[in-house]
Amino acid sequence: MLQDMEQYSSAKKTISMGILPLEQGYRLLERLTSYQVAMERVQVNITEDNQGKLIPLLDHGKLDFAVVRMDELDPEVYEFHPIYRDKLVLVYRNTQEGIPKEESVSLSQLSHLPFVLMSDESVLHNLCVRQFHRENFHPSVIYTAARHRYLLSLVNSGLGVTILPKALVNTDLFPDLCCKDLRGDMESLIGVVRLKHAHLSAGAEHLYEFFAQQGILAQEL
Amino acid sequence: MLQDMEQYSSAKKTISMGILPLEQGYRLLERLTSYQVAMERVQVNITEDNQGKLIPLLDHGKLDFAVVRMDELDPEVYEFHPIYRDKLVLVYRNTQEGIPKEESVSLSQLSHLPFVLMSDESVLHNLCVRQFHRENFHPSVIYTAARHRYLLSLVNSGLGVTILPKALVNTDLFPDLCCKDLRGDMESLIGVVRLKHAHLSAGAEHLYEFFAQQGILAQEL
Repeated sequence: MLQDMEQYSSAKKTISMGILPLEQGYRLLERLTSYQVAMERVQVNITEDNQGKLIPLLDHGKLDFAVVRMDELDPEVYEFHPIYRDKLVLVYRNTQEGIPKEESVSLSQLSHLPFVLMSDESVLHNLCVRQFHRENFHPSVIYTAARHRYLLSLVNSGLGVTILPKALVNTDLFPDLCCKDLRGDMESLIGVVRLKHAHLSAGAEHLYEFFAQQGILAQEL
Repeated sequence: MLQDMEQYSSAKKTISMGILPLEQGYRLLERLTSYQVAMERVQVNITEDNQGKLIPLLDHGKLDFAVVRMDELDPEVYEFHPIYRDKLVLVYRNTQEGIPKEESVSLSQLSHLPFVLMSDESVLHNLCVRQFHRENFHPSVIYTAARHRYLLSLVNSGLGVTILPKALVNTDLFPDLCCKDLRGDMESLIGVVRLKHAHLSAGAEHLYEFFAQQGILAQEL
């Protein structure tokens, strides 16, 4: 796809793209960099923020498209293309006491553990709360945070355990963190998303298609 | 200071704090984690965003305080305490051609190189532009980005060189990146900042003082 890019780069064009603060958890910026190198005349302005901030920007035409979680989006309003399926796992420090020995655990086995969770601006927060409801699980939540990196830091300090997509658990940064599968298939789908009837510039359309086709190369999990 | 924290943690208090997207470039979250572990009854809500977004939030009382760059702040309006002095350096990929051999270089030696720069919402952008003015330097800027990690990725791809605080150059993530000192002392001061006459809660006051006294433990540079 990089071969046919040059035809689009005859004048400097600006594309506005939103992304969740996924950091190096997915190799999103590397994809974008490879695109940028091939398309030097395109300026991609990236807004990195929570889903709760990105969606209104998309709604008001401030973004051409965004890479966000599709789990709560209305298909009547948005057009989206899934690019990565996230599996949510239990995250704990290797010294954490009270972690069940089994390879995969159910929430009911975790009721004695203190939890730290994503804050309620996050789709991941809602995913967790819905699953807690379904399984009639009432965790002791001692802290919430808007950024997964801060959650990882809190778990790493031994303050509690959390539930996060496996791809976000950066064990380069926090080598003492461990993951364990959760029964009940907690998943989140990341997709490239645009307003259904929005007219995009040729450049924005091209970059949208680039992500829709190439997806995110996640780290080896 | 951690010893006297417990007196503040008799009820769950919420503190709103802004931080620049410094990521692991400074060990800011580690400091905050150590505070949080000692003060379990405090909920610190972190807003991570560009300086251009954080300062209005501070002005409107949405944040108790923020860790931002002090270089452009009005001392009539804000009270601040410097916690880290950033040195700006030239950043390039080890395969980049045309880098002068000297240990430290002046901007005039770099006029043949393509630049990628922080976008104009950033204090770092303004710092660079002012220095370019002073030295009558007119770089060829081929791209701007709102996040330093994306700049690093672009430089790593060989697209161009950039100027960034040395502490932000993550060579764990991008081992092929190199830094070179710049003549002319380009510096940026990170500080903990609050509105001059703002009344903070006892908890917020305590955390502000914690940062003011302890500063940021930067990575070994």
